[in-house]
Amino acid sequence: MNTSASITEFVGTAIGDTIGLVIANVDCFLHEKMGLDKKYRSIGIISGRTGAGPHIMAADEAVKATNTEVAKIEMPRDTKGGAGHGCLIILAAEDVTDVRRAVEVALKELDRTFGDVYACDSGHLELSYTASASLASAKAFGAPIGKAFGIIAGAPAAIGLVMADTAMKAANVQMVTYASPDSGTAHTNEVIITVTGDSDAVRQSVIAAREIGLSLLKAMGQDTKSLTKSYI
Amino acid sequence: MNTSASITEFVGTAIGDTIGLVIANVDCFLHEKMGLDKKYRSIGIISGRTGAGPHIMAADEAVKATNTEVAKIEMPRDTKGGAGHGCLIILAAEDVTDVRRAVEVALKELDRTFGDVYACDSGHLELSYTASASLASAKAFGAPIGKAFGIIAGAPAAIGLVMADTAMKAANVQMVTYASPDSGTAHTNEVIITVTGDSDAVRQSVIAAREIGLSLLKAMGQDTKSLTKSYI
Amino acid sequence: MNTSASITEFVGTAIGDTIGLVIANVDCFLHEKMGLDKKYRSIGIISGRTGAGPHIMAADEAVKATNTEVAKIEMPRDTKGGAGHGCLIILAAEDVTDVRRAVEVALKELDRTFGDVYACDSGHLELSYTASASLASAKAFGAPIGKAFGIIAGAPAAIGLVMADTAMKAANVQMVTYASPDSGTAHTNEVIITVTGDSDAVRQSVIAAREIGLSLLKAMGQDTKSLTKSYI
Repeated sequence: MNTSASITEFVGTAIGDTIGLVIANVDCFLHEKMGLDKKYRSIGIISGRTGAGPHIMAADEAVKATNTEVAKIEMPRDTKGGAGHGCLIILAAEDVTDVRRAVEVALKELDRTFGDVYACDSGHLELSYTASASLASAKAFGAPIGKAFGIIAGAPAAIGLVMADTAMKAANVQMVTYASPDSGTAHTNEVIITVTGDSDAVRQSVIAAREIGLSLLKAMGQDTKSLTKSYI
Repeated sequence: MNTSASITEFVGTAIGDTIGLVIANVDCFLHEKMGLDKKYRSIGIISGRTGAGPHIMAADEAVKATNTEVAKIEMPRDTKGGAGHGCLIILAAEDVTDVRRAVEVALKELDRTFGDVYACDSGHLELSYTASASLASAKAFGAPIGKAFGIIAGAPAAIGLVMADTAMKAANVQMVTYASPDSGTAHTNEVIITVTGDSDAVRQSVIAAREIGLSLLKAMGQDTKSLTKSYI
Repeated sequence: MNTSASITEFVGTAIGDTIGLVIANVDCFLHEKMGLDKKYRSIGIISGRTGAGPHIMAADEAVKATNTEVAKIEMPRDTKGGAGHGCLIILAAEDVTDVRRAVEVALKELDRTFGDVYACDSGHLELSYTASASLASAKAFGAPIGKAFGIIAGAPAAIGLVMADTAMKAANVQMVTYASPDSGTAHTNEVIITVTGDSDAVRQSVIAAREIGLSLLKAMGQDTKSLTKSYI
């Protein structure tokens, strides 16, 4: 890692083929093409091959802990041949120290927020939960800031749809967004919903979705495990 | 399979990482977000990682055999790292018995309708044929109901394009749709056409496309086989 | 290869699961659906599972060397489970001899133009350079014809973004296009920029992007190599 130490842009790596980088002073032509707000010179970049939900939750913690904004959240079709998204999150600040710190926080959070990602050959489940949504969840899904918020995704899409139905029936939550292969996703093989409400209700809703999702993947003959350690 | 037996939503699985599910009484908020017709309480869901054409043909048989409608057909970019689509088909009815029966029929048909899917490392061919198109083909491609209908797809896209040209020249058929990576697909590496006409002409057209497609994959040094047993 | 010899459409294969084909006289209904210019009866097709940049540079050489036009350039989401694009390039001419020759030139060029594609498990770099852009670069990216032109792509997208910033700062070049997962790509996990300017400046810019890209992939613990032999 002698090499990486010498690259000023490099911050670190994390699960999901995630890399965290910073640019202290974005080139002015690039800055303009990206449509960044003029007051921000520095950006922090978190991008991975597998994820989105976990990265957005991690970015929520990063902006809470630092003086940064969420400039962009984009979701490529990826997961390395899997059925879902990767992610590209761009945080912005006037000073590089702030974005560097934010990227560090996000990378550290990822081990936890990947706790309810369950992958197998036929598909996956990706569940995310926060007691208090922040700017990243708001940017990506219109989550109400400060409220409990959950992301429920399942693949193949049929599993995500039954998870969504189960989640809505399991507790008194409000659906914020609904996405499917043709709309609101990058053509992933998923149904994804986001929910908000009281924290107990959101958690209960996400857990109910997870349980039926795991049972359905088992019914497909799949052995699924958390990529790290369940936290919801 | 004790687990799956206890999940009321589970109907069965089939080739292509396909799962068939039902929801007896869709949650009303989900129902609204999905834009389903109000008269349908129950939905049947057929979704797989690999496919689309074969699933649509199977769904055609399912709606012919039952009292169900085709509510949605969506095609994610999938095939597990391959060059094509997966699928999400939603059937709807007033009663869960009808959609369950429809999903059962579709799952049973898939073994047959996958008969002219040929996969290899460099690409694939996916050929589908029916003597009498029904609601699924109509929903997905605007197929004329009751007429012979064929779907011709090849990857990489160049192969699909030569298959399309060969199909059109091989018999007196009408092209219904043309799709390519930038238009009409979920950015798959395919050219896909659909054709209609007299049943002999459609079949002849599809067979001609299949033969040149297989020869071109062979010219790429690929050994391709039917995933099940050719039926066209 | 007895089989392939007998297929009149077959021209050859190349790296990146690329196949080169011709259609001497495109079926008139297909011709219309594709929106081809009426004066062209013959098309040459170059399509691969991995690429785009290298194929576009190869097509530039092909149109320079022959009497052909670039009819279409489409970029599927592909790379066989990787993070990037495949490609479909359609060249057109009045006579099949011209498109066949163009496809032959393009296929021959690919070994060279793939020289600065670096692939690994976590991502890839794809760098392309020409001292004199032609019709393919112009069609795909609006490159100014006859001027030096470079394509800089990196995955995961964060790496592409830092490469873009480095490229812009390394030399006096103008950015022609900027693309990211949500805009200008087929939802790939890449940031891609194209640059023009004096040939020395463009080359220097592309090389600077390559060097930092390679360092960042190394910082991810990845061992990356050129798929053929570096030419920039």
